[in-house]
Amino acid sequence: MRMSSLMVKTLREAPADAEVASHALLLRAGYIRRLASGVYTLLPLGVRVLRRIEGIIRQELDAVGMQEILMPVLSPIELWDTSGRSARFGTDALPAMTVENRGGTFVLGPTHEEVVTTVVGAEVDSYRQLPLTVYQIQSKFRDEARPRFGLMRGREFLMCDAYSFDVDQEAMGRSYEAAVLGYRRIFERLSLEVEPVEAQSGAIGGDVNHEFMVPSPIGEDHFVRCSSCGYAANVEAARSARLLAQASSTDAYSEVATPSSSSINAVAKLLEIADLAYVLKSIAAFDEEGAPVLAVLPGDRELRLPHGWRLFEDSDFALHPNLVKGYIGPIGLEGLRVIVDSAIVEGSGPYVLGANRADAHLRGVVAGRDFVIGESMALAETQSGDPCASCGSALELVRSVEAAHTFQLGFTYSSKMPGATVATENDGEVPLCMGCYGIGVSRLIAVIAEEHHDEAGLAWPSAVAPFDVHLLGLGMERNEDVAQAVAKIEAEMEAKGLRVLTDDREASAGVKFADADLLGCPVRVTVGAKGLKAGTLEVKARLAQEAQDVPQAELLAAVGRLLA
Amino acid sequence: MRMSSLMVKTLREAPADAEVASHALLLRAGYIRRLASGVYTLLPLGVRVLRRIEGIIRQELDAVGMQEILMPVLSPIELWDTSGRSARFGTDALPAMTVENRGGTFVLGPTHEEVVTTVVGAEVDSYRQLPLTVYQIQSKFRDEARPRFGLMRGREFLMCDAYSFDVDQEAMGRSYEAAVLGYRRIFERLSLEVEPVEAQSGAIGGDVNHEFMVPSPIGEDHFVRCSSCGYAANVEAARSARLLAQASSTDAYSEVATPSSSSINAVAKLLEIADLAYVLKSIAAFDEEGAPVLAVLPGDRELRLPHGWRLFEDSDFALHPNLVKGYIGPIGLEGLRVIVDSAIVEGSGPYVLGANRADAHLRGVVAGRDFVIGESMALAETQSGDPCASCGSALELVRSVEAAHTFQLGFTYSSKMPGATVATENDGEVPLCMGCYGIGVSRLIAVIAEEHHDEAGLAWPSAVAPFDVHLLGLGMERNEDVAQAVAKIEAEMEAKGLRVLTDDREASAGVKFADADLLGCPVRVTVGAKGLKAGTLEVKARLAQEAQDVPQAELLAAVGRLLA
Repeated sequence: MRMSSLMVKTLREAPADAEVASHALLLRAGYIRRLASGVYTLLPLGVRVLRRIEGIIRQELDAVGMQEILMPVLSPIELWDTSGRSARFGTDALPAMTVENRGGTFVLGPTHEEVVTTVVGAEVDSYRQLPLTVYQIQSKFRDEARPRFGLMRGREFLMCDAYSFDVDQEAMGRSYEAAVLGYRRIFERLSLEVEPVEAQSGAIGGDVNHEFMVPSPIGEDHFVRCSSCGYAANVEAARSARLLAQASSTDAYSEVATPSSSSINAVAKLLEIADLAYVLKSIAAFDEEGAPVLAVLPGDRELRLPHGWRLFEDSDFALHPNLVKGYIGPIGLEGLRVIVDSAIVEGSGPYVLGANRADAHLRGVVAGRDFVIGESMALAETQSGDPCASCGSALELVRSVEAAHTFQLGFTYSSKMPGATVATENDGEVPLCMGCYGIGVSRLIAVIAEEHHDEAGLAWPSAVAPFDVHLLGLGMERNEDVAQAVAKIEAEMEAKGLRVLTDDREASAGVKFADADLLGCPVRVTVGAKGLKAGTLEVKARLAQEAQDVPQAELLAAVGRLLA
Repeated sequence: MRMSSLMVKTLREAPADAEVASHALLLRAGYIRRLASGVYTLLPLGVRVLRRIEGIIRQELDAVGMQEILMPVLSPIELWDTSGRSARFGTDALPAMTVENRGGTFVLGPTHEEVVTTVVGAEVDSYRQLPLTVYQIQSKFRDEARPRFGLMRGREFLMCDAYSFDVDQEAMGRSYEAAVLGYRRIFERLSLEVEPVEAQSGAIGGDVNHEFMVPSPIGEDHFVRCSSCGYAANVEAARSARLLAQASSTDAYSEVATPSSSSINAVAKLLEIADLAYVLKSIAAFDEEGAPVLAVLPGDRELRLPHGWRLFEDSDFALHPNLVKGYIGPIGLEGLRVIVDSAIVEGSGPYVLGANRADAHLRGVVAGRDFVIGESMALAETQSGDPCASCGSALELVRSVEAAHTFQLGFTYSSKMPGATVATENDGEVPLCMGCYGIGVSRLIAVIAEEHHDEAGLAWPSAVAPFDVHLLGLGMERNEDVAQAVAKIEAEMEAKGLRVLTDDREASAGVKFADADLLGCPVRVTVGAKGLKAGTLEVKARLAQEAQDVPQAELLAAVGRLLA
């Protein structure tokens, strides 16, 4: 391809809203353009990268036995009413868009569990047709509150979503392992170091699930990992073995005046308590069934709001006058369900906590002695340095981007959608046992760009580069020898199956070198009058410090080595 | 691929709503499934055909110099306000769906002229960057009033839309020719006999445009063609040289009572006029600017409503008491713009037409003498047998399906969307001269199926078949020799790059033969115990009358011949 005919306009500066390197470079190098907030066009270079990523995904998913289908973007809202998920539309967990047409109300697919369960349920009647895993690559739509970082988080994006169907949990586990294997191979070929970590299932449902995380300083997610035993989990799902200290004193607790001290910091300062962990947070919320609940956790941690819970708002406090905002505590609240963070064990303390009266706290409280530890769960977010729940070693906190997510759904959808059953070997009938698997395809363009670039521009791995070779003809518009040599080299490389982008523009060497660095093809070959006289060409791998002069006859071999 | 693991369930009967062969067979053979009216899922076989069609389209469009991009489905409504097309949303010409999200109101792209003009306008600054043609393959959305025939007319469908940008009309003409050439090659490779015909531009705009028509008895469109000179046009755009006869009498016209005779047929019967053409239709309408207009045409033809016009409704008649519904005529209507069909020439007649009074007509009217022929245009639909406007030979009427449409847009969009200009060689600035080109990609699956099938099932052309060979192992579950031979042949064919679907199911020969015919792979190879003993295999092209026995050593050569 000749650069003079390629639709690419490189920019010196990225727009001000491009906060991260991948976003800025994909814009500057002419791979993407913004049409609206979270809505992007892929220009020819962007599509070339996309098609290569899609090709790798298809190859590896086909190789683990999946079959490609293509479901519609539009699905009738009635399917989502059946699963119960339409009730959660508009929440950040499921920000679906809907559209009215002459056929009724339709959902613009944010994910396809309801549709695929309906489609496959109708095709599959017998255990003999299982295992079965289908996938599709398709535009998805989510009304994100804060679209960010270009292709990283958009309102419209390309996703590869896969769904497995099995006769029981054990078989589903095997399909899950096959999908995870396919994913590992995909990320390996994409030159992404991805860690599968345990995660929360959120709006998708199911029990076991894993996020495939790319550690990255621009990530919006965090996971913890244990370098000793290999345990890794999203902070929202991570379990730690943190235990607060046993109380050294046996004194009874007492009430203290804490005027205008409704924050943990203010109370700790007033009462001169050095370790914020021992000033307990008591947070009023509603659980997934809408019943009020009190979450009690160490004061130095944020609450990890369990899925389906919501916090009290002012109007809720007005209806519960016994809960005095800023001064709540678990002692003396008859009838309210209290859940205590797992770090707060029997006998630990002494704690300070709210007295359930304005401007008052209780101090010297011992857990188990002064309030009952009925229910205990991991309510507090895990932090760097917390002991690993598996082996006790210190956990490390890693900032990261989610590249994929896999879920063992079990019967979450097949128990609700009609027809999602199969006949068993013994003439029985069981619901399909499902898994689902998603890769953010357009996001991967950004993730790879974020992982593979330097100050000067992008630096694509060979497997996904828009072109293998960027061939620069210096002064070819005025030097016939250079023009002929460029045409010959271009033809030879293309005959070998290499994708070549030839810079035939009337531009200075400086402009051509800068644009080659910005566009990020893996190998740059430069043809200039001086080298031609000496019988050499300049060859440079994108991230190499130095270019090398290569005899013309050895060019293809040299390029092949750099691409390998 | 083994059929036991492929997600395919063949059906003996098609659902009652499958009115045409392609729809019924694609359902019965397990290529597609309906999710909602006009909304379909492609199952694995359907996706395999789709990917091959897409591959051919990409190859041929790349070969004529186009570049692939991918625009979003969502586009801000403001772009459509700028072009003025949002005012036509909801009409049958532009049945766009819109969706609200946190970013505003967005259109689900029914077509992308506004978006592409914005995108390319921002990338292209100079005539040096032209010519440029971009294309995309993408889901499109139209709120069709009557989705029909499965993939033929849906509310969601896949389209390949291309857009050319040039510095002037002449260069645009060359880009248009290149696109048409690409289209011709695509349809040739898809084994579709397609005729480009002149057409109306409808909601897209522009002057010259062509529909690419596949003659088909199930088509919803009609075109006329002249076998003498090659003229071909959609009936809505066709011009004919039809002229009604000159009046033989010079008598003045007179009023006749025609009680309760408001229809052409009733008047002709009452007045004993044999040729309905001479009982003129006078139809009240509003033109594209909303001004009332009277269209006068021969009584034997339907009005071809010009683009942007709408017919009078009862409420409009109430506001225009001088127009007496059923008795309207061009004589005596002061101030109303009258347009006469081109068949009604000066001196022709004598005609009967409405007297503009209830229950009365005028007879013996001569055009030009009794009413002025001010404006004349082709108002009446062309019919089979009308004389060709180019050469006078009789036109033939052909029922057809539209497979593609190309438009010379000119400045229709670039004059409205900001930034869609380029600098010229002489330091001037001109708007981009555009063309646009669309192929119905998912529709093509249905069109090809409609053209290539028989009573027993589908019969895919080799270029788009989901598999090249359907390999049937008869009794392979109980005969180890057959099973081994099947595995060996399968491996040999796949090593040669053939796509093989192996029927390894525990099913009778009859079921396997019937399903092979239904699925429609180009070549069927049957392995049975009897043939194996004789050292032969049975090979049959899908549409061949008879199968042939082929020695095992000659199998690959025989298959290759049938696929060629």
